[in-house]
Amino acid sequence: MIIILKNGATDDQIDHVVERIEAMGLKAHLSKGTYRTVVGVIGDEEKIQTAPLKAIPGVEDAMPVMPAYKLASREAHPQPSVVEIGSGKAVTKIGGGHFGMIAGPCAIESGERLDEIAGEIKAAGANVLRGGAYKPRTSPYSFQGLGEEGLKILREVGDKHGMPVVTEAIDPRHVELIAEYTDMIQLGARNMQNFVLLTEVGMTKKPVLLKRGMAATVKDLLMSAEYVIANGTTEVVLCERGVKGFDNACRNMLDIAAVPQVQLMSHLPIIVDPSHATGRPELIPACALAAAACGADGVHIEVHNCPEEAMSDGPQALLPEQYKDLAAQIRKVAEAVGKSF
Amino acid sequence: MIIILKNGATDDQIDHVVERIEAMGLKAHLSKGTYRTVVGVIGDEEKIQTAPLKAIPGVEDAMPVMPAYKLASREAHPQPSVVEIGSGKAVTKIGGGHFGMIAGPCAIESGERLDEIAGEIKAAGANVLRGGAYKPRTSPYSFQGLGEEGLKILREVGDKHGMPVVTEAIDPRHVELIAEYTDMIQLGARNMQNFVLLTEVGMTKKPVLLKRGMAATVKDLLMSAEYVIANGTTEVVLCERGVKGFDNACRNMLDIAAVPQVQLMSHLPIIVDPSHATGRPELIPACALAAAACGADGVHIEVHNCPEEAMSDGPQALLPEQYKDLAAQIRKVAEAVGKSF
Amino acid sequence: MIIILKNGATDDQIDHVVERIEAMGLKAHLSKGTYRTVVGVIGDEEKIQTAPLKAIPGVEDAMPVMPAYKLASREAHPQPSVVEIGSGKAVTKIGGGHFGMIAGPCAIESGERLDEIAGEIKAAGANVLRGGAYKPRTSPYSFQGLGEEGLKILREVGDKHGMPVVTEAIDPRHVELIAEYTDMIQLGARNMQNFVLLTEVGMTKKPVLLKRGMAATVKDLLMSAEYVIANGTTEVVLCERGVKGFDNACRNMLDIAAVPQVQLMSHLPIIVDPSHATGRPELIPACALAAAACGADGVHIEVHNCPEEAMSDGPQALLPEQYKDLAAQIRKVAEAVGKSF
Amino acid sequence: MIIILKNGATDDQIDHVVERIEAMGLKAHLSKGTYRTVVGVIGDEEKIQTAPLKAIPGVEDAMPVMPAYKLASREAHPQPSVVEIGSGKAVTKIGGGHFGMIAGPCAIESGERLDEIAGEIKAAGANVLRGGAYKPRTSPYSFQGLGEEGLKILREVGDKHGMPVVTEAIDPRHVELIAEYTDMIQLGARNMQNFVLLTEVGMTKKPVLLKRGMAATVKDLLMSAEYVIANGTTEVVLCERGVKGFDNACRNMLDIAAVPQVQLMSHLPIIVDPSHATGRPELIPACALAAAACGADGVHIEVHNCPEEAMSDGPQALLPEQYKDLAAQIRKVAEAVGKSF
Repeated sequence: MIIILKNGATDDQIDHVVERIEAMGLKAHLSKGTYRTVVGVIGDEEKIQTAPLKAIPGVEDAMPVMPAYKLASREAHPQPSVVEIGSGKAVTKIGGGHFGMIAGPCAIESGERLDEIAGEIKAAGANVLRGGAYKPRTSPYSFQGLGEEGLKILREVGDKHGMPVVTEAIDPRHVELIAEYTDMIQLGARNMQNFVLLTEVGMTKKPVLLKRGMAATVKDLLMSAEYVIANGTTEVVLCERGVKGFDNACRNMLDIAAVPQVQLMSHLPIIVDPSHATGRPELIPACALAAAACGADGVHIEVHNCPEEAMSDGPQALLPEQYKDLAAQIRKVAEAVGKSF
Repeated sequence: MIIILKNGATDDQIDHVVERIEAMGLKAHLSKGTYRTVVGVIGDEEKIQTAPLKAIPGVEDAMPVMPAYKLASREAHPQPSVVEIGSGKAVTKIGGGHFGMIAGPCAIESGERLDEIAGEIKAAGANVLRGGAYKPRTSPYSFQGLGEEGLKILREVGDKHGMPVVTEAIDPRHVELIAEYTDMIQLGARNMQNFVLLTEVGMTKKPVLLKRGMAATVKDLLMSAEYVIANGTTEVVLCERGVKGFDNACRNMLDIAAVPQVQLMSHLPIIVDPSHATGRPELIPACALAAAACGADGVHIEVHNCPEEAMSDGPQALLPEQYKDLAAQIRKVAEAVGKSF
Repeated sequence: MIIILKNGATDDQIDHVVERIEAMGLKAHLSKGTYRTVVGVIGDEEKIQTAPLKAIPGVEDAMPVMPAYKLASREAHPQPSVVEIGSGKAVTKIGGGHFGMIAGPCAIESGERLDEIAGEIKAAGANVLRGGAYKPRTSPYSFQGLGEEGLKILREVGDKHGMPVVTEAIDPRHVELIAEYTDMIQLGARNMQNFVLLTEVGMTKKPVLLKRGMAATVKDLLMSAEYVIANGTTEVVLCERGVKGFDNACRNMLDIAAVPQVQLMSHLPIIVDPSHATGRPELIPACALAAAACGADGVHIEVHNCPEEAMSDGPQALLPEQYKDLAAQIRKVAEAVGKSF
Repeated sequence: MIIILKNGATDDQIDHVVERIEAMGLKAHLSKGTYRTVVGVIGDEEKIQTAPLKAIPGVEDAMPVMPAYKLASREAHPQPSVVEIGSGKAVTKIGGGHFGMIAGPCAIESGERLDEIAGEIKAAGANVLRGGAYKPRTSPYSFQGLGEEGLKILREVGDKHGMPVVTEAIDPRHVELIAEYTDMIQLGARNMQNFVLLTEVGMTKKPVLLKRGMAATVKDLLMSAEYVIANGTTEVVLCERGVKGFDNACRNMLDIAAVPQVQLMSHLPIIVDPSHATGRPELIPACALAAAACGADGVHIEVHNCPEEAMSDGPQALLPEQYKDLAAQIRKVAEAVGKSF
């Protein structure tokens, strides 16, 4: 921790800062500059990381030198993690060179429809099936998902096509149920800082797909991953899905630089969701290819065979034939940068 | 609903759009311009508001003409709502000319400390006591709140000082318990689109303090209010508390224009939280006065009597004596624009 | 300057950093923590402020401890500056308790129209007349201003009504001409980092109205003020006019907290332009009152007597009668917080 | 143009809107819905595009159906444009499948240094040499460029290595001079809406490299291109170089989706500048590969052989050997998506 004092901090204030540090069992090292004094804190930073140092009179700023996301950090785990999703024959690896192709409709609408879509995307190269059973909708009047009935359908269709399955949890009271039916639990962008849900999902020890919140920095994303890991799960896949931008021609702004940033800061795999990032089918292919080229560990794409009848997010879904073409291109680009499928 | 077709939409596509509209029991009115065709939808817009119209081939855009936040809208309720918090002698009104002064520490730390703070802010003019018993913390290693013990302390201290009390709910499983102990339930910025929690809190029929999310538009905020109201509560106070901005000199960017915007769009009261908006005590007074002058129905300010020992958000707390000075100025400005206390 | 080395920086790298600092005539003070080394630089920070320290191998970050906007800083000039605009009988002071009421149409369209508007706003309380002769328009096909003819009209109308006048410069080749006709030169938001123009305008030594750019931090704004002052002008009024936001219900997002921030960091007066900040007449009054209450040194408001015929920005103009009502309220609020007119 | 009237617009207001439209020589087509009236304007939209329609009483919104950037639009020119830079043997094409590799130091510092860098990047595959002679610096105390001396160096070094050259113009009074020495003129992000400079540069008829402003939408960027084209130049290469974002871990936020957006909306080539977009050398390679994969027509990368001595932007420069490795990877990815060099 480095503590920068205000220009004009008094000797009493400086002494008080030193006392507080020593009271926490650490040592203070003063560096008096021409204009300002800086205090270096020597010892175990964890003891001080959550203390309100900036509230001490005379303190201008306090900067940690160690990341607060200890378990998620690259320092803690220098090799990239590989997350295994599913069991038996249907196992998909993501990370460490393995490329995940997560695809499926936004919401599970019926067994028949999901079966059709799953058959087509599996043939195209998808290796994890997604579908929402509990939907976080911005309007209380919109379709909210089929609930447990949806989970059953997802499990059956996944098993039939030999694909591990992922679905979103939005309620801590449903987490256990979802864990029974699925291979991976998604935490959505709107719930990235729903710490109650993060804790509950972490306790299942299931692989987790954690999406970045719309106003979250990369560091915030890693802090949320830390929550999940600190509660039990060790297998977390992060997902960049666009953040809030000022150009409303797109639903969100895809922050592609988050991919190499995460890879510098953390050992966790990171994939990209161009469907939510753009909200526009005509922009999804280019963004998916960008993700594959920049080193992402996978892509998450929404596919529907009749978007105009979709019960959620139809306007941003790719058709199965569009997905097929795109999947072939993604494979080409990802292989060009050293990924395997 | 106005549907704008793409430049070059074919006659077949136009016919298909008209068919879909008529299939929903509505009438389509075509307006063929030199370059584009526009379809006006005539009839009850609610029937069509959640349909994926933009996914229909040939459609460029679809714009609703009625707000999707029906119950929260000004159209539905032309007079400003007045929310009553508390019962017996300790009742505070917010809205319709009544100004709310919500204050207290970020977290409830002990009965003694809360009692001291409450005594000082009550004397200064605060009329609702706040304090967190369940804290949404970005680090899993930070203090998470006293839980039910905190709720008991809050109730006792509120009763002793004759102040209604508000606390944040973060877990749907605690909502009932919180409703027993408190007069108003807060939904925090990070949970503004936690629709499960919104639903659960709405069902208590208690007054709600709904904070704007960091990436939420004013319309998004009203959609979340709609969730709460559609589930039972009719008394919702909105709170502007800063949104994510690019200038990280402040914790967030206070969107002061949200206040008159909400007042045009909705009948619900709106207050301002300059503490979270700025994160810097030296900026809080100016922003609180701005809120009072621009017509806000109240202010929400964090106060602590020893910020450097605070277990949460110490660096942004005002001292009781700072709050006292500010409260006097706020009253002067708010009265100058016609508010009563 | 504080230089933070990377976790794992080698002794050679540390030595190299020290050498570079000493080569600039400064002293380095090392503080070796448990995980990182921090180097405090002792001596005249100006010598090092523009050096590419972050490019030295092993350096994680380099933070100045003195503001780079030396002349504009509060440290350099502890008392608030008062800017005097105009001469003879028509002098308006802004800053240090004096409140500026700058108003007028977006563009100067004709002598008659400007005369009508000026008469009405002067009666309402405006004390500086604005009007554009050279307009920065986003479309090459829009009206670009009357040029020198417009400057003449502005001067005549200002003189007739006893109001000092301000107009925008957009071309360094016109600055001298503009300086002859007007009392204050405006640098618009789109030109806040047009350093060539800043330099040219600074050299006139005329009072300057410097508007904040749409993506500029408060520090960026002060750096631009530094440009102007370093070139000769000492009288600069800053203007917060909204920054780019994600909620496109408004044209921009008014960053009201910039007002107290500037007042902490700088001695320069700061006013608010709610017309450009919101782009919506129905939101202007509330935002103008917020500005007055939070300590701004004035407001800049566009007024037109026939907005639907305005040649620029008609949709955001207030009518003269709306301005009159607002001006009376502003005066009440500004006086309540200690300003004089 | 589609004009949406306010809920509750009176018949008089509707009549007035119709009159205004007819007065401009166009026809109005009314569509009265259950809640609102919509007016479709039939005829040549250009006549009405710059009129202040939203200022007419009763009007809620007015939406053009044709792009305002006529000359830059895909409609006007369905095939992608190919821009040719340079003459004689040193000609580089960008667009329509031709991939531009623009590289060089931020500022021209000396003939020797530029010569060394040019030799190395040319060998690595760069096909346009960049270097700044006039630098837009945020501090008046920073190095401002060598001016004409720098232009001479750039021309000589470019000729020696057989590379066409590009440099930035920041002052309309230097544009003619720059046009004499160089093959392409850059308009920087801070000057994207410096319409005076856009006009002057357009008049040279030289190829232009137009960078996106930090707060500019894709549409804003195309409007600025329109300025340049409307003044004479037909050869414009657009450049996405990151926009202002809220996560200050990067200098800017690279909006990779802008590439396919521009390609849908316009015929102009678009390249990506990962150096300014990230400001961090360790993130540049991943972002450059993302650009190549998503269909960009080139990349613009800053290279310096001694970043810690660079007179501008050293901390974001790649070393020549890093550029060499990256250029080889870019070529592989760009060829995988069909580009030629």
